[in-house]
Amino acid sequence: MKRKQILRAKQRKAGTSPGSLIHIGQASERKPTVRLLRYNAATKEEAIVDPPKADAKAGLVSWYEVDGLHDAETIRALGQAFQLHPLVLEDLMNTEHSPKLESTDTRVFALAKLVHLDQQQGELNYEHLGIIWSDGVVLTLHERPGEVFDPVRQSIVNATGRIRGLGADYLVRRLLGAVVDQYFVAADFLAEQMDRLEGQLLAKRSSGLEVAYKLRGEINQLRRHIQPLREALLRLITDHCVLISPDVQPFYRDLLDHCNGLVEFLDGLKDQSASLMELTMALADRQTNEVMKVLTIIATIFIPLTFVAGIYGMNFEKMPELSWAYGYPAALGVMLTAAIFMLRFFRKKGWL
Amino acid sequence: MKRKQILRAKQRKAGTSPGSLIHIGQASERKPTVRLLRYNAATKEEAIVDPPKADAKAGLVSWYEVDGLHDAETIRALGQAFQLHPLVLEDLMNTEHSPKLESTDTRVFALAKLVHLDQQQGELNYEHLGIIWSDGVVLTLHERPGEVFDPVRQSIVNATGRIRGLGADYLVRRLLGAVVDQYFVAADFLAEQMDRLEGQLLAKRSSGLEVAYKLRGEINQLRRHIQPLREALLRLITDHCVLISPDVQPFYRDLLDHCNGLVEFLDGLKDQSASLMELTMALADRQTNEVMKVLTIIATIFIPLTFVAGIYGMNFEKMPELSWAYGYPAALGVMLTAAIFMLRFFRKKGWL
Amino acid sequence: MKRKQILRAKQRKAGTSPGSLIHIGQASERKPTVRLLRYNAATKEEAIVDPPKADAKAGLVSWYEVDGLHDAETIRALGQAFQLHPLVLEDLMNTEHSPKLESTDTRVFALAKLVHLDQQQGELNYEHLGIIWSDGVVLTLHERPGEVFDPVRQSIVNATGRIRGLGADYLVRRLLGAVVDQYFVAADFLAEQMDRLEGQLLAKRSSGLEVAYKLRGEINQLRRHIQPLREALLRLITDHCVLISPDVQPFYRDLLDHCNGLVEFLDGLKDQSASLMELTMALADRQTNEVMKVLTIIATIFIPLTFVAGIYGMNFEKMPELSWAYGYPAALGVMLTAAIFMLRFFRKKGWL
Amino acid sequence: MKRKQILRAKQRKAGTSPGSLIHIGQASERKPTVRLLRYNAATKEEAIVDPPKADAKAGLVSWYEVDGLHDAETIRALGQAFQLHPLVLEDLMNTEHSPKLESTDTRVFALAKLVHLDQQQGELNYEHLGIIWSDGVVLTLHERPGEVFDPVRQSIVNATGRIRGLGADYLVRRLLGAVVDQYFVAADFLAEQMDRLEGQLLAKRSSGLEVAYKLRGEINQLRRHIQPLREALLRLITDHCVLISPDVQPFYRDLLDHCNGLVEFLDGLKDQSASLMELTMALADRQTNEVMKVLTIIATIFIPLTFVAGIYGMNFEKMPELSWAYGYPAALGVMLTAAIFMLRFFRKKGWL
Amino acid sequence: MKRKQILRAKQRKAGTSPGSLIHIGQASERKPTVRLLRYNAATKEEAIVDPPKADAKAGLVSWYEVDGLHDAETIRALGQAFQLHPLVLEDLMNTEHSPKLESTDTRVFALAKLVHLDQQQGELNYEHLGIIWSDGVVLTLHERPGEVFDPVRQSIVNATGRIRGLGADYLVRRLLGAVVDQYFVAADFLAEQMDRLEGQLLAKRSSGLEVAYKLRGEINQLRRHIQPLREALLRLITDHCVLISPDVQPFYRDLLDHCNGLVEFLDGLKDQSASLMELTMALADRQTNEVMKVLTIIATIFIPLTFVAGIYGMNFEKMPELSWAYGYPAALGVMLTAAIFMLRFFRKKGWL
Repeated sequence: MKRKQILRAKQRKAGTSPGSLIHIGQASERKPTVRLLRYNAATKEEAIVDPPKADAKAGLVSWYEVDGLHDAETIRALGQAFQLHPLVLEDLMNTEHSPKLESTDTRVFALAKLVHLDQQQGELNYEHLGIIWSDGVVLTLHERPGEVFDPVRQSIVNATGRIRGLGADYLVRRLLGAVVDQYFVAADFLAEQMDRLEGQLLAKRSSGLEVAYKLRGEINQLRRHIQPLREALLRLITDHCVLISPDVQPFYRDLLDHCNGLVEFLDGLKDQSASLMELTMALADRQTNEVMKVLTIIATIFIPLTFVAGIYGMNFEKMPELSWAYGYPAALGVMLTAAIFMLRFFRKKGWL
Repeated sequence: MKRKQILRAKQRKAGTSPGSLIHIGQASERKPTVRLLRYNAATKEEAIVDPPKADAKAGLVSWYEVDGLHDAETIRALGQAFQLHPLVLEDLMNTEHSPKLESTDTRVFALAKLVHLDQQQGELNYEHLGIIWSDGVVLTLHERPGEVFDPVRQSIVNATGRIRGLGADYLVRRLLGAVVDQYFVAADFLAEQMDRLEGQLLAKRSSGLEVAYKLRGEINQLRRHIQPLREALLRLITDHCVLISPDVQPFYRDLLDHCNGLVEFLDGLKDQSASLMELTMALADRQTNEVMKVLTIIATIFIPLTFVAGIYGMNFEKMPELSWAYGYPAALGVMLTAAIFMLRFFRKKGWL
Repeated sequence: MKRKQILRAKQRKAGTSPGSLIHIGQASERKPTVRLLRYNAATKEEAIVDPPKADAKAGLVSWYEVDGLHDAETIRALGQAFQLHPLVLEDLMNTEHSPKLESTDTRVFALAKLVHLDQQQGELNYEHLGIIWSDGVVLTLHERPGEVFDPVRQSIVNATGRIRGLGADYLVRRLLGAVVDQYFVAADFLAEQMDRLEGQLLAKRSSGLEVAYKLRGEINQLRRHIQPLREALLRLITDHCVLISPDVQPFYRDLLDHCNGLVEFLDGLKDQSASLMELTMALADRQTNEVMKVLTIIATIFIPLTFVAGIYGMNFEKMPELSWAYGYPAALGVMLTAAIFMLRFFRKKGWL
Repeated sequence: MKRKQILRAKQRKAGTSPGSLIHIGQASERKPTVRLLRYNAATKEEAIVDPPKADAKAGLVSWYEVDGLHDAETIRALGQAFQLHPLVLEDLMNTEHSPKLESTDTRVFALAKLVHLDQQQGELNYEHLGIIWSDGVVLTLHERPGEVFDPVRQSIVNATGRIRGLGADYLVRRLLGAVVDQYFVAADFLAEQMDRLEGQLLAKRSSGLEVAYKLRGEINQLRRHIQPLREALLRLITDHCVLISPDVQPFYRDLLDHCNGLVEFLDGLKDQSASLMELTMALADRQTNEVMKVLTIIATIFIPLTFVAGIYGMNFEKMPELSWAYGYPAALGVMLTAAIFMLRFFRKKGWL
Repeated sequence: MKRKQILRAKQRKAGTSPGSLIHIGQASERKPTVRLLRYNAATKEEAIVDPPKADAKAGLVSWYEVDGLHDAETIRALGQAFQLHPLVLEDLMNTEHSPKLESTDTRVFALAKLVHLDQQQGELNYEHLGIIWSDGVVLTLHERPGEVFDPVRQSIVNATGRIRGLGADYLVRRLLGAVVDQYFVAADFLAEQMDRLEGQLLAKRSSGLEVAYKLRGEINQLRRHIQPLREALLRLITDHCVLISPDVQPFYRDLLDHCNGLVEFLDGLKDQSASLMELTMALADRQTNEVMKVLTIIATIFIPLTFVAGIYGMNFEKMPELSWAYGYPAALGVMLTAAIFMLRFFRKKGWL
């Protein structure tokens, strides 16, 4: 129940001044690492920066990657080094904060959620991500060490693609692209589950109500996290953010296209999950109907017959039929006739 | 049934001129207290002001806290002291008025609802709150004495945080922050109830329809009260209210973020409560289906058998089978065969 | 079926030129009265004006109140006296016209619906109301004599409140206020019915489907009539209508606040009625489920037992059990065991 | 299945160039008539124009009424005479084209649907209508000869109302008014059906699901056809179309009011039809519940009693109760007690 | 499960730089053909261009049609020949990309979906289509060789219609028209299926839930593909794209009209499918109700009668009725009376 944590945390903070650095999320003893990668078309250098300091060099793009948000000390040190507002630091440490984007002419501050598919557990996990980007310097902060940004790092190190020839704007684009790629993986996972559910439902009629319910919840959550990212991108593009050079603009527009496609895809999944829930209920109704028909046919045929048998099971002293020579076959004949009549009635009703 | 009160009160007022000071809400004998707290970075003074008067001092922030709205005399005296429009006074005394914000260049008038979680009763109570804020002077009025603003008061008295160094704009921000914090506590309470309900439903299938219904009502009410507060904040920020200094602007934006998160969170809860209601109904359908199957299986097996037994219970004089040596075992054999046939039919249908 | 009337009337008019004065509504023989009330801070005079004429006096506010719309002659005379467009007269006489507002720099023409709560019949009735207001002259026309505007009239006559000191704009505000007050009474009535229905449903499970259905219809109708009034007020305020003086503006804004609150309240009622309908259906499902369970438990226990009894009721000559010394108690024992087994099965299923 | 026709027709046209004159709709052998009515305040003249030509006279309003759209030759001749764009001709002949409005400074081209109520069949039929209006000349084209515009024609011929004193703008207003009047008749018809359905449902519980379904379809269709007409009127008015003189403007606004009322009325009907469908389903559920209760009460009382009777119908040699003097009355007493106990249980459950 | 492909493909691309040419869609060995058709009013020439090059001639319209998107080499060659941005090439090769439109003053780049109705399989297939259009040069790229554009090609070759006299703008209009025509065919197919389903449902009550579910999915997909095309057209028209000459503008507006009609038509189908699903469920409920009634009537009549028969089947030694002369007829009479009473009860309830 992750949701409770959020609010509990908010409750813990209730009454404190805004800007207080209280970590909200899973506690950890580990000291976060600050990795610096500095490059241009000609050179590149990698380093672990401890203590954090902001030593940008003109003509080089500096990318600081921080793999932990739980340590107030590190965050405060980064805040001083990069001259960050206390409220920015607070938002970074509040790992339950919603995605958002704030941009000025000289700096962009974005919060997003990384999504990880845990193949073994078959569940999606979210991680808080902050990106602070000013001219030539990019600072990324996330909760746990992980491999999401490895393709970007390798691209820089191996000088593949156009990344070494372009600036910090293209780096941020690639980082955001890596984030969005994970959303596609997650959406794929959900779509697969949906298709499996649909297949089961249409073929074998297993009910799967609870699965449909949980799936809908997961689709909603994924959509809730990608939606603000899309809006942030749109604003970056329409505001003609000065940090983005005209050459790199099309790549941002391309990423926005991807996000649009993703949101549309999730909307389709959402519609489908609602249709599926409806279909499940309708199929259940139909099955009840079928069960009822079987019961009704059996009961309606045999209850009257049993009544007739009951009549001739009575012990009255004077029951003339009992001594008739063909009383027994006649009774059986009456029963058979009644049964045939009933079966015809049901066939006429279309129940057989 | 709080709702009736509102309208009854409106009815009571029907026909009176606008601006009439009629208290709408729970009556009380208590005389409200007006507490003054005056401070700047260097000094602070606390006082009970009786009768109310507006003696602001240049260079100091004056916060008047009134803990009662039921006493027309006090409200009228405050109105005169602070030169408030009769319609403002009317809105303050009408404790069922919806939240709103009116701002001019020199004064902001806001109505909001305080929410209290009554842990023992397990219910949410709302309290009417008015904030009137002009240059250097802040007047807060609410229905009952309470502890909501105590953290702010202590912050000022103990000179913790940055509150003593900033002006009335930051004070109002802190007061509004204290209000919003209570909404998080309330939302937490509702989310917890929702999770408990969901857990019960998925595990034990207790129906909880009434609980879901009431919970949905409470979520709607909470959302209805926070929504106008969010809009008021947005307007304060986008209108560039002159009372808010540039230094304090980010803190307002931060609070707006919190409100946005809250509204979004409540929307999620609302969706979930609808899904849950649907799931409840679908599960009930499924259970009916299951009950029907049990009935149908039992009845469909035993009714025909009972009919066969009935046949041989008839008292006809001439029933050849009755005198057969193996008539009885044969009859039992026929019954057993019919029962096995039925069970196979049900297995084929997937009902077993 | 009021709705049919509307359309029938439209049908009756089909093919006539626009501007034709055909009364749509309940016919009446009564000749409408035109009452004039002329006042300023110093003097006031009351009169019955027959035939209608427009003799405004400078420095005085003139309020003409007409209590009938069915008499084409009176309406035409008023039209000539006050120089009204034929289409305005047509809209006035069409008592089924929707509320609307038309304003020019010199004249405001508004159509609204008065609502009356008939306590004895427990139903809401609507009355067509027209207000024509130009500088210093206010003309109100409604269908039947009634008491809605009596508080305003008494306020003027007794010179209570600020009405005698202000102009026609404040008079119109008070008249509209009197209209809106009636809507609050009506909304109260509907909310009370809703609460009663909810109480009955949650306590005794009376079904009340038809009541919920009718109530929803009434809520929708009330909302449909107040909604255009709200929009009209908003337009009057945002267009800075020159007929409204700055002093009176806040009173219009105050009325708009009331309307907003009312619409929001009705929206809440509407949501609640939908929730209630859903709950009703869910509860009915649950009850069916419960009924089914009782049937299933009884039938599932006794049908097999009856079958066993039927077996030993057969008249085969050779049934060894029948002559056993403990045959009878053994049969009873078998039955008891089967019954206990069934009861355990049901307890395991959670049906008991 | 009118819908298929539309698309079949589209299919037939697939691949042809835009502007091809292919009639879509019911074929006919009849040659359309072009009737000319030319008038001003002083004179009027009527004529059949064959072949079509455009001989407008200054100072006179010319109205050409064409009663057939199936004849490509006539349409092409009209196109040449009035200098119409090929795409306009194509839209006229495509009788399944949606309503629309195109206006330039000198010409207005509108497509609408005439609705006819076929009282005998109890169904609504739609007819394609084109109006082309330039200074002083109005051209109307519809599918079949009919009486819709007869009141307007008579108004002109008999010089009643203000039509002879005004220009082509007023003529178009009257023609559109005649169209809208037919929609009111149609809406009346649907509302009547709805009320009848509601009455039946609430009184006798006839189910009427199929009727409700079809009615909803018809309401949607009517709304779909009036909606674009409303939008067209709104655009004509807000664009201040130069063809409409200031004197005639209010009459257009009046017609827009009517359309607004109609759309609103149809929206109400739509809501009601949804509510009604829901109510129908809820009532059906309730009735199932009632049926179940009867079955359960009867079965639950008699099945155990029959079991007791079955016990004493067994043929065991040693059944002491059978030889008791009061065995029979005792057995009856036990049954009666059990039945009373069951009835009390049902009364407690509220099922009786 | 086409959807999985999309996402799998995205996954395959995850981590690559934007602009990488990776084909997403069905692989193929075939080498795409590039056909050139160059024409003006006077001349025309056809050719297969291999390798692709862009040799436009002034005064002629050049249309390059490429019938394959799977071959990176061809696409790269086209990119160089026509100076296309790498991101444009990437979008072309990603056959699962959503429809979109990008326009600058000199070039329009549009992505759309071709729809094919496979009459034999009874299913709709979609094909990726790219159109790149700059002054006098039109480049179309789609996945498979096909006949969609054959009418346009023939129109040019045979010089029918106005196509040879107009420029590239009219060619694009005709190509888009050919695309939209296929959507009409597809919508016709879906409407026909819907009508068949409706007919079956209303006549024979076959349930068809799964068919309705799939149909709804197909309607949604078709709508999702035509919707962005409509928006693209609207933007082309409202932005007054300089590539479109004033003469050709009306033809674009005409196409937009068609698209609007199509979207509206699909919305209607969507509404109808929802209504139909609801009706299906309501009819199923009614049928269950009917089944229940039959069961209840039969059981309620015969269970008590069987009980009476059971009574007189008991073997008590002292049962006075058994030796009565008219005991048997009396018992039968009692049963008959009870049965008649039950039947009356059911008739009163309206169940018969």
